Amino acid sequence: MYKKILVAFDGSPYSQKALTAGIELARCCGSELHALTVVSLPEYAGTVGEVEEMVGKAQDFYRKKLEKASQQARAKGVELNVHLLFGHIGETIIRFAQEQECDLIIAGTRGWSPLQRLLMGSVSTYIVRHAPCAVLIEKGKEEDEND
Amino acid sequence: MYKKILVAFDGSPYSQKALTAGIELARCCGSELHALTVVSLPEYAGTVGEVEEMVGKAQDFYRKKLEKASQQARAKGVELNVHLLFGHIGETIIRFAQEQECDLIIAGTRGWSPLQRLLMGSVSTYIVRHAPCAVLIEKGKEEDEND
Repeated sequence: MYKKILVAFDGSPYSQKALTAGIELARCCGSELHALTVVSLPEYAGTVGEVEEMVGKAQDFYRKKLEKASQQARAKGVELNVHLLFGHIGETIIRFAQEQECDLIIAGTRGWSPLQRLLMGSVSTYIVRHAPCAVLIEKGKEEDEND
Repeated sequence: MYKKILVAFDGSPYSQKALTAGIELARCCGSELHALTVVSLPEYAGTVGEVEEMVGKAQDFYRKKLEKASQQARAKGVELNVHLLFGHIGETIIRFAQEQECDLIIAGTRGWSPLQRLLMGSVSTYIVRHAPCAVLIEKGKEEDEND
């Protein structure tokens, strides 16, 4: 079964569902579990200082989310390896999965509106298209946002 | 974890990979496992006899594939429930998953060529877009066709 599972995690309820599935699968199958948060930086920023401030704030914010995720995994007896990277979200997830030789990527999605279906521009779609391995898409509903 | 898993199975090496994943997951997680083969019929056929002949041949061909799939599952200690339906492939898989209240659909894909990425017309893409539940996409490589 899957030896190394990567959860694409941004702290949203959709990615929370992906994390829960990852923890349960890792527990069932004895897999190594990783959670990766990717923060995209704006292409144009005013000053170096502005970017540094943005990076610092993102690090504080997401490290807390990742620490909470680790606790959730630990409570189920699973060790979660957490990672925080900056860059293009889809590309960074795919590159990480390649480099780490993950054999499953789990991502959440809220499902698609008719317009989204047309544009097909979401991160989960990017992952399904470009992943070097199996991809599990966990679906959320709008009301999950209030979880 | 997943209680009822549906594998979209057409006997191709890509769907064989999906079946293998389904069997292993069902074994790990104690899930109920189903395999569904959908045969699409041509929209225009010459005579009723022609359609009947086509249906008969498809039934013979796919029932053997499904029987082999059942044996593969049984060898791993998993009971596989097999189904053969006729209709639009994507729609029939989704409707089956809804009616049977499956919580995971597994499908195989060979990955996408640049043109396929543009068109995004494959069955696996249809399933990811329309599924009422989680979707696991198992990826094959071209050489798997010779498996």
